[in-house]
Order: sequence, then structure tokens, then C-alpha cells
Amino acid sequence: MSSPSATQNTYPYPNEPTWSKSEKAIARTAFDTALKRELQDVMHTTKQMANQVKEPADVWELEHYLTERRKEINRKYDYRYSQLRHVFGRLLYEGRVSEEELRGLSDDKLKSIRSLAELLAKYAD
Amino acid sequence: MSSPSATQNTYPYPNEPTWSKSEKAIARTAFDTALKRELQDVMHTTKQMANQVKEPADVWELEHYLTERRKEINRKYDYRYSQLRHVFGRLLYEGRVSEEELRGLSDDKLKSIRSLAELLAKYAD
Repeated sequence: MSSPSATQNTYPYPNEPTWSKSEKAIARTAFDTALKRELQDVMHTTKQMANQVKEPADVWELEHYLTERRKEINRKYDYRYSQLRHVFGRLLYEGRVSEEELRGLSDDKLKSIRSLAELLAKYAD
Repeated sequence: MSSPSATQNTYPYPNEPTWSKSEKAIARTAFDTALKRELQDVMHTTKQMANQVKEPADVWELEHYLTERRKEINRKYDYRYSQLRHVFGRLLYEGRVSEEELRGLSDDKLKSIRSLAELLAKYAD
């Protein structure tokens, strides 16, 4: 089923930067830490919302919250090297990773991560 | 788009018993009471599950529980007079309405409600 052109379409950026072994380790740690924090936020909010449940509509609101968070987290945490700069750009914008945690990535990667974070901040205003 | 035969298909039981005004009042109260109890169960279980959340998988389990309960409740509580004997048969089987609460319905209705409850009990064994 897969033809050379289909494969090419899967990798639209042939000039992707490579990730060194140490960069991969930094990325993995930053990624996992952010995901862990985000999941802890969800657990915390779930407990809060459940404690405040007073009527049936409140539990369906909790269900909706959980479904949306699950989908958003699945979309956001995409650990493909081709996506990772976008992922970190968004996480940096959201304050879920710090520049400190990304230290050790190449300057060009940090630059594009920062650019995306700034772009998102601009659009969010 | 609707032809006489299509309309006929929508009402496969032309010999549906009628519901008197007092029967409708009894049915409405029993139905609403059962639904209210069931929703209170969901609220109670939600609080319990949320309190016991220790890891991310627990919140997705809660989401799944809520989604399934919402779908089941939507399916089960069908207040069409053509469906109501089936609805009460199931609720009686589940212990969510009592025979006491259905008192005042005609004997033929009570008989078919009891029959369905017994049938469900048999299949559940």
C-alpha cells in the first residue's frame, strides 16, 4: 500500500534537524516531566470538581472536562522528533516546560521553540 | 419522505394499552423517582472514585464510567407510553422501582411489567 510518494508525504520536512543522543535525553525528560505535571493537574481538578458535585449536571460536566482533557493531551504530547519543536513551543508558551529544562538543545532548536511560544502568546492576546 | 407504511413501521404495536390520567401520574412519579435515585448513585460513585484517584489511569477510568452511565441512563429512561412497561420491567428487576410505587396501574400493565422483570432475572442468572 505504501508508495515512495506516500512515504514522502508522511515526511514533508526532509530538512528536519537531527537530534543528538544528549538532546534526545533532555527532550525525553522535559516531555515526560511536563506530561506528568499536566496529568497531575487533571487529577487535582477532577477531585475538586467531584467534591463540588451537587446535582446531576455537575457529573456530566466532569465527564465532558475529562473527555476534552484526554483528547487535548493525546494531541499535544506527540513524541515524534519531527513534531517535538512544536510540542515544546506550545509547552513553553503554556508554562509547562521552562527554558531551563530545555537547556542543552541546539541553538537552532531552542530558537524555533521560542519563536513558536512567542507566536502563540501573540495569538492568545 | 413518510409513507403510510413507514408510519406503520414506527408503531409496530397498534394494540398498545392506553394510559389513564391517574396511571400517567403514577408512572411519571415512579419514573422520576427512579431516575433521581439513579443519578444520585452516579453522583455518589463519582465522588468515591475521584477520592480514590491516585494515578492518571484512575481519572480515565472515571471518565469511562461516566460515559457508560450517561449512555445507559439515556437509553433506559425512555418516557414513551409505548416503552414504559419495558422501562418499568427493567427498573423493577433492578430494584429501582418497587411494586408499591407502581400500584394503581392496570392489572394488565402490572402483569407485563412483572413478566419482564422475571424474564430479566432469569437471564441474569
